[in-house]
Amino acid sequence: PTTIMSPSHSMSSLAVRAHEMLDSILGAQETSSTTVADNQARDLCHFYCNLIPEDKAVFLKTLAHDYGVDHNIILQIAQNLSMAQERGEGVLLKTEERLKHALVPKYNLVFTQIGHLNDGVKFLVDMRADILHLLNTTCHSTDQDNPYLKSLINHLRDLIAIWFSVGFMTLERVTWESACDVLQKISEYEAVHPIRNWTDLKRRVGPYRRCYVFTHHSMPREPVVVLHTALTDEISNSIQSIVSHPGLEQESSVNGARKEDPNSVNTAIFYSITSTQKGLQGIELGNYLIKRVVQELQSEFSQIQQFASLSPIPGFREWLLLEMNRYLHAEAAGEYPEQKLFTGRELQEIADNVGDTRDKSTIETIMKLIKTNNWAQSEFLPDLLKEPLMRLCARYLYVEKRRGFAFNPVANFHLRNGAVMWRLNWLADTTTRGLSASCGMMINYCYFLEKTEENSKVYMEKHHIEASPQILELVKANVGIETKSHL
Amino acid sequence: PTTIMSPSHSMSSLAVRAHEMLDSILGAQETSSTTVADNQARDLCHFYCNLIPEDKAVFLKTLAHDYGVDHNIILQIAQNLSMAQERGEGVLLKTEERLKHALVPKYNLVFTQIGHLNDGVKFLVDMRADILHLLNTTCHSTDQDNPYLKSLINHLRDLIAIWFSVGFMTLERVTWESACDVLQKISEYEAVHPIRNWTDLKRRVGPYRRCYVFTHHSMPREPVVVLHTALTDEISNSIQSIVSHPGLEQESSVNGARKEDPNSVNTAIFYSITSTQKGLQGIELGNYLIKRVVQELQSEFSQIQQFASLSPIPGFREWLLLEMNRYLHAEAAGEYPEQKLFTGRELQEIADNVGDTRDKSTIETIMKLIKTNNWAQSEFLPDLLKEPLMRLCARYLYVEKRRGFAFNPVANFHLRNGAVMWRLNWLADTTTRGLSASCGMMINYCYFLEKTEENSKVYMEKHHIEASPQILELVKANVGIETKSHL
Amino acid sequence: PTTIMSPSHSMSSLAVRAHEMLDSILGAQETSSTTVADNQARDLCHFYCNLIPEDKAVFLKTLAHDYGVDHNIILQIAQNLSMAQERGEGVLLKTEERLKHALVPKYNLVFTQIGHLNDGVKFLVDMRADILHLLNTTCHSTDQDNPYLKSLINHLRDLIAIWFSVGFMTLERVTWESACDVLQKISEYEAVHPIRNWTDLKRRVGPYRRCYVFTHHSMPREPVVVLHTALTDEISNSIQSIVSHPGLEQESSVNGARKEDPNSVNTAIFYSITSTQKGLQGIELGNYLIKRVVQELQSEFSQIQQFASLSPIPGFREWLLLEMNRYLHAEAAGEYPEQKLFTGRELQEIADNVGDTRDKSTIETIMKLIKTNNWAQSEFLPDLLKEPLMRLCARYLYVEKRRGFAFNPVANFHLRNGAVMWRLNWLADTTTRGLSASCGMMINYCYFLEKTEENSKVYMEKHHIEASPQILELVKANVGIETKSHL
Amino acid sequence: PTTIMSPSHSMSSLAVRAHEMLDSILGAQETSSTTVADNQARDLCHFYCNLIPEDKAVFLKTLAHDYGVDHNIILQIAQNLSMAQERGEGVLLKTEERLKHALVPKYNLVFTQIGHLNDGVKFLVDMRADILHLLNTTCHSTDQDNPYLKSLINHLRDLIAIWFSVGFMTLERVTWESACDVLQKISEYEAVHPIRNWTDLKRRVGPYRRCYVFTHHSMPREPVVVLHTALTDEISNSIQSIVSHPGLEQESSVNGARKEDPNSVNTAIFYSITSTQKGLQGIELGNYLIKRVVQELQSEFSQIQQFASLSPIPGFREWLLLEMNRYLHAEAAGEYPEQKLFTGRELQEIADNVGDTRDKSTIETIMKLIKTNNWAQSEFLPDLLKEPLMRLCARYLYVEKRRGFAFNPVANFHLRNGAVMWRLNWLADTTTRGLSASCGMMINYCYFLEKTEENSKVYMEKHHIEASPQILELVKANVGIETKSHL
Repeated sequence: PTTIMSPSHSMSSLAVRAHEMLDSILGAQETSSTTVADNQARDLCHFYCNLIPEDKAVFLKTLAHDYGVDHNIILQIAQNLSMAQERGEGVLLKTEERLKHALVPKYNLVFTQIGHLNDGVKFLVDMRADILHLLNTTCHSTDQDNPYLKSLINHLRDLIAIWFSVGFMTLERVTWESACDVLQKISEYEAVHPIRNWTDLKRRVGPYRRCYVFTHHSMPREPVVVLHTALTDEISNSIQSIVSHPGLEQESSVNGARKEDPNSVNTAIFYSITSTQKGLQGIELGNYLIKRVVQELQSEFSQIQQFASLSPIPGFREWLLLEMNRYLHAEAAGEYPEQKLFTGRELQEIADNVGDTRDKSTIETIMKLIKTNNWAQSEFLPDLLKEPLMRLCARYLYVEKRRGFAFNPVANFHLRNGAVMWRLNWLADTTTRGLSASCGMMINYCYFLEKTEENSKVYMEKHHIEASPQILELVKANVGIETKSHL
Repeated sequence: PTTIMSPSHSMSSLAVRAHEMLDSILGAQETSSTTVADNQARDLCHFYCNLIPEDKAVFLKTLAHDYGVDHNIILQIAQNLSMAQERGEGVLLKTEERLKHALVPKYNLVFTQIGHLNDGVKFLVDMRADILHLLNTTCHSTDQDNPYLKSLINHLRDLIAIWFSVGFMTLERVTWESACDVLQKISEYEAVHPIRNWTDLKRRVGPYRRCYVFTHHSMPREPVVVLHTALTDEISNSIQSIVSHPGLEQESSVNGARKEDPNSVNTAIFYSITSTQKGLQGIELGNYLIKRVVQELQSEFSQIQQFASLSPIPGFREWLLLEMNRYLHAEAAGEYPEQKLFTGRELQEIADNVGDTRDKSTIETIMKLIKTNNWAQSEFLPDLLKEPLMRLCARYLYVEKRRGFAFNPVANFHLRNGAVMWRLNWLADTTTRGLSASCGMMINYCYFLEKTEENSKVYMEKHHIEASPQILELVKANVGIETKSHL
Repeated sequence: PTTIMSPSHSMSSLAVRAHEMLDSILGAQETSSTTVADNQARDLCHFYCNLIPEDKAVFLKTLAHDYGVDHNIILQIAQNLSMAQERGEGVLLKTEERLKHALVPKYNLVFTQIGHLNDGVKFLVDMRADILHLLNTTCHSTDQDNPYLKSLINHLRDLIAIWFSVGFMTLERVTWESACDVLQKISEYEAVHPIRNWTDLKRRVGPYRRCYVFTHHSMPREPVVVLHTALTDEISNSIQSIVSHPGLEQESSVNGARKEDPNSVNTAIFYSITSTQKGLQGIELGNYLIKRVVQELQSEFSQIQQFASLSPIPGFREWLLLEMNRYLHAEAAGEYPEQKLFTGRELQEIADNVGDTRDKSTIETIMKLIKTNNWAQSEFLPDLLKEPLMRLCARYLYVEKRRGFAFNPVANFHLRNGAVMWRLNWLADTTTRGLSASCGMMINYCYFLEKTEENSKVYMEKHHIEASPQILELVKANVGIETKSHL
Repeated sequence: PTTIMSPSHSMSSLAVRAHEMLDSILGAQETSSTTVADNQARDLCHFYCNLIPEDKAVFLKTLAHDYGVDHNIILQIAQNLSMAQERGEGVLLKTEERLKHALVPKYNLVFTQIGHLNDGVKFLVDMRADILHLLNTTCHSTDQDNPYLKSLINHLRDLIAIWFSVGFMTLERVTWESACDVLQKISEYEAVHPIRNWTDLKRRVGPYRRCYVFTHHSMPREPVVVLHTALTDEISNSIQSIVSHPGLEQESSVNGARKEDPNSVNTAIFYSITSTQKGLQGIELGNYLIKRVVQELQSEFSQIQQFASLSPIPGFREWLLLEMNRYLHAEAAGEYPEQKLFTGRELQEIADNVGDTRDKSTIETIMKLIKTNNWAQSEFLPDLLKEPLMRLCARYLYVEKRRGFAFNPVANFHLRNGAVMWRLNWLADTTTRGLSASCGMMINYCYFLEKTEENSKVYMEKHHIEASPQILELVKANVGIETKSHL
């Protein structure tokens, strides 16, 4: 009886129905009627899945608001705490335990019950994605449901995090002989370098390629995290060499199948990593996958000496345009911009090259070229822009920070894993996608296995970024601009 | 720094070492150095496994005592609660969340880290078994560590319960074609009706038998719960008919293999259920296994109409001897015993049969016979004892209670599952084991599928035991003794 | 030494090389040097695979001619036979055995050796396809190699037939969860109703569809025979209803997956059967596959009552055009054609409809329409042509014979299996492919399980075709034309 | 009709029944009624399996005699051969083909049909074992059925040999995690060094041991050939060190499992190889299994440098006793035995040791000791007998021949495989079994991989036995006896 909530005031009929269903699950659980509770949980899932988004929102708010904790009980136990402490450790510990249980919201029982079902875990992961979406779209300070939704989503994260503990993940290699439905998902999930057709796909799981996934026992046939790796003989400087070329020389066997020559491989390039479940946001699995794959590759190829990513730099173009804008504003306001972006000579050469820029400043012209990606088609601009853009990109990656850590999320991911910021590559991804993200640049993060621990520690504790001379040179080049440009 | 405990006063060198290891795991976790933390967790497991029991106790107490919660922080947040409530729901919810996190003991991080390892889950389950053992053997009110150990064990139970949620268990059928190591474990774990040799074992997984197990993804090749089932054409009244006989008529195929005739089966008898992991005590999986097996059998044999157990009655003989002792004491004290155990006529017939009982009372003689199991070898006693022992056993099962529920744990298990107390069977298990447990009696609990939910609910809520006329008659027969015996 | 052939006269260098390789295999086998023989067999396979077609022909002729039997030894043993018979059964049997062994060509040892290799069986099957191709393209009576090639191909057939005995084939169901490489092959092999894209393919292995294949242990991942089946609620009369529609009503589950409702199924339609290996020509596996699939479906769906094919009628249009041509020639020659094809009224109506046919006869006009498939686009012609074309197609299927059996190979296949010629369907396949093969008609052959044995026997022994009233009516309609058309 | 045999004269009712069944299979096959033929073949198998041995003999003779070839047709075609030759190659080849087909016995069709069935191949293998048994037990020259049975068994061998071509065998490793039924068979089939209990068995598939089997697709769960291998750090000189000891040092893991240290292994010892199917006699698979296992081990342990057997020497004691007997007879007959067995000094020492030998010669005494295996219990005899018995055993192994090849079958097997006769080991198998076979000696045959081909060739072609200096010394020691003993 204590768990059965009386529906509040003027509830919508949907909320009333939600109350009924949730109450019956809780009631059945209380009397240990497992089959009843199972059936009711299954009904609830069906019910929820068939709701339209607006109704889902009502349901989730009802769940968050009416099936949380009982504040009064918590308050009451909390007030007993200091007295309990005086009565000795035994009493204190028991009181704390009571407090802990009082802090477990009622919906936890519902989730536990749903977790019993086939596909129940997947349901909860998907429901968490719904809540994330709801919070992102309705996040107004005026919405009084938000604190409750945030409690709900945090609670779900903690529960799911325990279920998706790394020890529960299974590493699987995906090949062209893997199940078709799984390969189709791999294809659809690939967002970094989209897979256009099945020939593309076959190449990405074929010779000199490794596609590894983490799967979870309770979400069969679903790749939870996907890591694409290329086996090469050098650290790749262009994504096209990986996704559009068949890789190193291949012997062809009697029946025409292409075979790898293990001896020609000395490098593993991680060129795409994707977490496929929005509802797992905040539960880190990607770094574990990389580490497991490194182990796997080391045991397969003893001679692999280099592990590196070929990573995109999402946000660089956006950042650059903002910076240029800021510069223009500062200039317009007659302020002396703290740091120049281009040297005078660079501006001059570009101005000479693009010809008549009317009454626009060269900076404005560059902005337009970058916004439209048109510079990449030009004969001369790529060469002229190479030096300044690489310099600025290094600055973006190495200098820009957020709470002390690298501002660029991909950089932050690899640095936290202990990788070294290794090499910035010009014209490494000349697809529209690549140009729009980072003016076509990509970067390698190198994993020196014996150093990752230390790198990671130093990065986490002291915010120090380990970088190669190339990167450091590029970064340093930013500092001198002012001086140089004054000459 | 906050997580690093300073070792207390005069710690043993073992405790110091434990502190070092635990602190380094927590430190590595704090800086997200996953590989370091993994390695340290692995070291810790090795370290613990190689300790002698006394040192394990020291380690566990250190863990429980020094890596729990910070009472002061909890107290402080608890004191802020009422003020937070006044500042609005958002603040209240956030404070509650802070309180919840403060209530998570430090060792939780250690367990999470161990859970990442291969065999880590198994390690924690086994460690929980160690703590249970420690609590059972040292449970003196004077031991001040106990409250901490209890907190520790409860916390582990909650964590393990989430990991062993039913949705994470896999149902597997074990046959003679299953892996040898698994079959060996099945054989060793069988405690109810021990398996003497491999012929025995082959029969228990052979035709007209079903052996189902729950396994867990993170403890591969380990049957966590085992359910032995016999397929018969009636509700079995003797365990020998199951474990020593090959079952119903079998066709033999061309190559001599024995085959089932599905049409001759109409009943499934659950004759043994075992939870193999002591560390999972308190986490109910057995009832779920029975329910899954019922589903499985129904889909395999549409004509199965009866599902029943053939269950032991552990504790009956012990209870009976206590009751008889109590009776004798009451009599000796000149008190009028509230309820007689045997009728005068029963006592007389037994006395006549056993002959010279010297100066002992017949009750004493019966007690001795029962203690030694010698009555079973006698020509006449089994017949003479049948009526009174069955009557008393029915009383033990149906009337004796603990907190309102059946005192006998096996009865309580099946009644909670919604079974009906169906039929008491005389001379159903005449092994020494069976005689010593329950004077050779066994009982069937019947599962009427369309009624289990209701039965379970009524039992859980109102403590009502659903029983067959046979049981009820036997129970009622106890009531009339006094009157009858006075005649 | 006896097995080593001395290269004949002016052999090409290729033939010399072939001799060397073959001799070394035979030599190694003679001394039981298995590893040597294995390696040499592997070399031979590589060598052969890399030859251009012309060289393959030289190799095959060398093999056939120089590694066959020793005619003189055979002759000699044959001449001893009658004398052996006089010396008693023991001697006769031994002589026959010697004769049998003398009749085993030398290349048999080479094939046995190749059969030891991984992929060796596949190699021999493919080589047999090469020989078939060679025989088909060079089959001039003047080519003196042909008798040897025919001996070679027959010997290979006998050997392969033993290897591909039905007991060695494995039945597998292919679904969307099957291996991607296998599904790709399924897609490529489908010649009857080509699969255009992966959506097509997904449908053919999805709900209400069954795709079964025979695989062989020594040719892993290779579907040897493929049978596509649709589960329906009636005998389908159009291929589009199967390959372009998702089938019967489907429930959608929680997570959106489409599910079958087994109760809505009462018919299984075999709509495509393909033998994928040219080298297995003459080794019947298709009928066994159909029978195994019938068993499989019966055990899955007890309520399936009808098993029928929806089959193409390859060759009908070609036959029809030939018949019409013959008619025109006969007419031109002033001969009275033995059997008219169209009634006068039919011709008149068509003539009226197509309008001005210039100086061509209506027959010629019809021929042109049929040749171009243009009639199918017309508004009226499909209706006008329906009756005559169905009548003529029934005649083609039922009356036209080859060595007493149905001339149409698909008809012959199903009739030999014991099926009944069931229903001719108008506009059942309106693709260009369907129109070009059979003017868009398809036919159902029905498998009445309790009658197939008898039907098969009667067809095989007495050439009797079991047909439905519809077919018989259509056939009979041909007979009356003359009379009718004279009216 | 032509295939239907009219039962001959006074056939037993069993033979009549056999005729009926066989005829109906042949009849059904002729009309391609596959399902009928399948059913009848299944009936035939059931029928045969349930016969008592005497009736099986009748059945087999009927099959051999009445379902063989038609001698008259063969004779007739044979007589046409020379004429055919004159008419050209095409005609000759066709006639030869007709002859070949006429030489295929009728029962071949029956076997082909049975081969279609599940377990059909196993049935034929077992039936061949029955025929072998029949031939071995009734092999009197007077039995006129024998030539027919021999034809039958040879035909079956050829058919089965094609089915059991090495390319059709699958290599599997058996471990303690393999299926229980397979392990039970491994245990039962082990004849060389019997497995006494499951602890024994667990050791033989445990750490530092490899048990590999060949299985065949059509006989699932049946190990056809079994090879037991020990991984050691030297060439073992005693079987007890392998079957009774746990092998090299093992690390024990956290959970107590014993693990191999791959670096401590440099030798693989094949200590038992068993062909389990009597019906496969004459179809060599064992040497292929050894070669596959060598490949397997090389890829698992790159550092393994030695491959050797530890083999029994069956027949040595029997041979020795015969030789000694022959010696005594020669002596008694006053003949000068061509070669003495023992030196005078050896005889004297033995005589001194065994004490009073009454009126028996020392040779007779030694014979008795060897017959009873009693010498092994003696304190001194093992030392005294070591030199002469090892010398004589070397002579037995190296000098005794049959058709030019080693007389000892195990020696012949390994020498044919290209192994070197490496080391004779004294007291290597002191079980009763070992003493009775070879006075407790065992021998290592070494496989030097780069030499096996050549060794095999030289042995097969020139009967040369490659042996180590130890063996050659021992052999040579036999030669000098006469001289030495005369001193």
